[in-house]
Amino acid sequence: MIGFGSIGRGTLPLIERHIGFDREAFTVIEPSSEFAHILRDHGIRHLPLALTPENYEATLRGLFPAGKGMVVNLSVDVDSILLMELCATLGVQYIDTVVEPWPGFYFGSTLPNAERTNYPLREKVRDLGRAHVGGPTAVSCCGANPGMVSWLLKEALLKLAEDTDVAAAPASREDWAQLAMTLGVKGVHVAERDTQVSAKAKPQGVFVNTWSVDGLLSEGYQPAELGWGTHEKKLPPHGHAFTHGAGYAIWIDRPGADTRVRSWCPGVGPQFGYVVTHNESLSIPDYYTVRDGERAIYRPTCHYAYHPCNDAVLSLHEINGAGQLPESKHILTADEIVSGGDDLGVFLYGHAKGAMWYGSRLTIDEARNLAPYQNATGMQVTSAVLAAMVWVAENPHAGWVEADEMDHERCLQVQRPYLGRIECHYTDWTPVQHRINSFAEDRDDEDPWQFTNFLAV
Amino acid sequence: MIGFGSIGRGTLPLIERHIGFDREAFTVIEPSSEFAHILRDHGIRHLPLALTPENYEATLRGLFPAGKGMVVNLSVDVDSILLMELCATLGVQYIDTVVEPWPGFYFGSTLPNAERTNYPLREKVRDLGRAHVGGPTAVSCCGANPGMVSWLLKEALLKLAEDTDVAAAPASREDWAQLAMTLGVKGVHVAERDTQVSAKAKPQGVFVNTWSVDGLLSEGYQPAELGWGTHEKKLPPHGHAFTHGAGYAIWIDRPGADTRVRSWCPGVGPQFGYVVTHNESLSIPDYYTVRDGERAIYRPTCHYAYHPCNDAVLSLHEINGAGQLPESKHILTADEIVSGGDDLGVFLYGHAKGAMWYGSRLTIDEARNLAPYQNATGMQVTSAVLAAMVWVAENPHAGWVEADEMDHERCLQVQRPYLGRIECHYTDWTPVQHRINSFAEDRDDEDPWQFTNFLAV
Ligand SMILES: NC(=O)c1ccc[n+]([C@@H]2O[C@H](COP(=O)([O-])OP(=O)(O)OC[C@H]3O[C@@H](n4cnc5c(N)ncnc54)[C@H](O)[C@@H]3O)[C@@H](O)[C@H]2O)c1
Ligand SMILES: NC(=O)c1ccc[n+]([C@@H]2O[C@H](COP(=O)([O-])OP(=O)(O)OC[C@H]3O[C@@H](n4cnc5c(N)ncnc54)[C@H](O)[C@@H]3O)[C@@H](O)[C@H]2O)c1
Repeated sequence: MIGFGSIGRGTLPLIERHIGFDREAFTVIEPSSEFAHILRDHGIRHLPLALTPENYEATLRGLFPAGKGMVVNLSVDVDSILLMELCATLGVQYIDTVVEPWPGFYFGSTLPNAERTNYPLREKVRDLGRAHVGGPTAVSCCGANPGMVSWLLKEALLKLAEDTDVAAAPASREDWAQLAMTLGVKGVHVAERDTQVSAKAKPQGVFVNTWSVDGLLSEGYQPAELGWGTHEKKLPPHGHAFTHGAGYAIWIDRPGADTRVRSWCPGVGPQFGYVVTHNESLSIPDYYTVRDGERAIYRPTCHYAYHPCNDAVLSLHEINGAGQLPESKHILTADEIVSGGDDLGVFLYGHAKGAMWYGSRLTIDEARNLAPYQNATGMQVTSAVLAAMVWVAENPHAGWVEADEMDHERCLQVQRPYLGRIECHYTDWTPVQHRINSFAEDRDDEDPWQFTNFLAV
Repeated sequence: MIGFGSIGRGTLPLIERHIGFDREAFTVIEPSSEFAHILRDHGIRHLPLALTPENYEATLRGLFPAGKGMVVNLSVDVDSILLMELCATLGVQYIDTVVEPWPGFYFGSTLPNAERTNYPLREKVRDLGRAHVGGPTAVSCCGANPGMVSWLLKEALLKLAEDTDVAAAPASREDWAQLAMTLGVKGVHVAERDTQVSAKAKPQGVFVNTWSVDGLLSEGYQPAELGWGTHEKKLPPHGHAFTHGAGYAIWIDRPGADTRVRSWCPGVGPQFGYVVTHNESLSIPDYYTVRDGERAIYRPTCHYAYHPCNDAVLSLHEINGAGQLPESKHILTADEIVSGGDDLGVFLYGHAKGAMWYGSRLTIDEARNLAPYQNATGMQVTSAVLAAMVWVAENPHAGWVEADEMDHERCLQVQRPYLGRIECHYTDWTPVQHRINSFAEDRDDEDPWQFTNFLAV
């Protein structure tokens, strides 16, 4: 395992509980010693090292001399693609939760914004992956989102088909895309509301979150990015198409962490979410594209609509206002959180029943009772990593895949005990429904589901 | 006194402490009975009545049969202009903290947005006021802001003159405007940072603030509005000039409570503030205009840049995201607040020393020790009302005035014991100084002090 941060720590007890492994052969590579005591307590070997472009290859070669095993990469600042290539060479399986680059990409980059997006990163993974068909399985981007939400989306589509009397037995990617088109799904928000609350008020100058602050900052200050549906009539302000590849997405020349959309979650109803770029905003529209020859005749719009915990909302307001990265960072532990939970699901809109939210609702109390070292947000991620590990063990030669291409039933079967309640909610809400007084806006009243109606900048 | 809300309750003990008055003749008009016990404890007569267009005249005539006395209007939903006219007729003095209309103006109005601004309200007050020169004094809009900040601005200008070796002995409006021009002040933020924090996390669905939630919602969902400096090169997106009157201001077709500017306050440094419309954003640019004949040759940009307490930031995020007014409302009392304070001042920029913040820094602990029933925010307001009452008593025939036209030295002399520390801070910050990565923006690098550089939408 690489990285022993909030996700790494939470994953360890799940691995111990569910996966038979050789404790002697298990190594955690983690430069920080802050949580080394947990590794000692669990009798797990700790390699106190930061992987770098110089040492990563020798380090991993040293750990996998026999060409078997699995790398679970839960770190920041380590290049995922190089690890995937190396694992393919070494013949070991690989899992990560994000396509992470070496430092220098997210901040201080000289690249133009179009190239600081996830699209070129994902395109590179997909291109390289074509050379690895049938090779050692490497799962790219499999946490809660990206990851689990792709499995939930499949369950949601089947449920929607059932509820609208559409026959559905999808077996291939094409079938799934066709099903989404038949159902008339115009778009999918990965709609999350984190309601976890600390006992202590957020201190000024500290960026507080329920998972990696570095992770959120990295992706939050990439440009906003989203899968671009075939029903969309016009680009948003500062919106740009990509000039290479299949062109299933667009980017907006704004930080995702300061790009708001109207969205919807159970419990709270209509709310703002941030269009933070994510791999699922790319993999889902790509996976669900229906083509007529070369031409895409159907694709859903898809993006993250993330309402992080209130302390993170305040943290973003603070750093956006200052125009500066935070002085210090803090991840709320399960012990610090006194109430709330994480509602994370897919919000399918534009179909016969209007809109539907389908997802996991997990409270902090439930999370605390399920496994140690994690809050509700972490548990949705770590249990997805667990599911990926099980699936990889069962499918060791699947080549390079994303969550959309895995067996969603099997994965959710493994993960479900850790997801609290999986709920389905229909709503008649649309993004044009409510306004406090009326002000200038770029509004399309003919089709409420245009992205322009969701966007609130 | 009309209204016994958070400001009314806080003002009462200050009046008792500083002003000799006939307890028999003191009446509080307040429809709610929630805080009636405080009036009983203080032996003050309570008229449990909501003023309406039908009853206001008879009610006030009944209370002021002898044509002497003072109306201190600290209510919401009561038409200030009608009260001012009536007071002029009755020969009684008048003070309020905002030009308030009857219900139906702020929400559910059929008026176009240009007419839902404060500009026509203020223009009407100023027009009518011309008929009352030398009449019973009526102070329009004298709380902390609008109000006290106009006095602080005069002190700030004198301090800046001193620190930049500019001779200054302004005696008239023209002198003050000339001084601001000579000093090269391009603009003034009324820059506020409320850092007050409750012991309890904000409950979902409740709008929490440190003063009137109704007041903030009313002005927050008027269009953003600001005094428009002669140095400004172009209108912001959705910005509009006014088509009548002296044209010292513009409005933006966005809610003020969702219009952010980069601003600066001591303690935190650079931060976002909301351009919530306020009377001082109109009175200050009007007062400080220098004319050559008809033509304005100098005027500062001026607006509120308000960072309310974090719970209010979250509340705004919540209701803007929902597009709906809050389900319930709560004003934090001094007892609920565990830390923080209110920094409220004027931020003068574009002059020889770059930028300067000058204002009151009052903590909740200080406020609690100074007087009962109020937090730091309330105390900055109630002490301004007290100062206005003293000044009105000493100047009973000044006609209709605003804070800019009152004796700032005398008023601050009365108010100063309640303002914590009055501090002056110079800073080299400009609104183009910091960004987290670089994204598309409408940026003027030739003049950092253009409004377009402050605006962050
Ligand atoms: N897909 C998802 O749903 C999802 C959800 C949460 C987190 N994530 C991702 O998982 C990763 C871990 O998240 P987290 O909350 O545990 O983050 P974290 O910030 O808590 O921990 C990251 C860890 O990586 C370690 N690290 C840093 N540089 C390293 C290097 N050069 N070599 C090895 N280790 C290094 C750090 O010391 C730290 O312990 C992040 O990339 C994050 O974006 C994905
Ligand atoms: N200039 C400033 O610095 C400043 C600062 C704070 C508040 N204010 C203004 O002061 C006013 C009071 O603020 P607050 O925090 O005390 O507000 P609040 O909401 O706490 O209280 C308002 C009071 O007005 C009463 N009221 C409502 N309708 C009435 C009617 N028809 N007749 C008589 N009374 C009625 C309410 O019952 C309530 O007690 C608001 O208009 C607010 O905008 C100005």
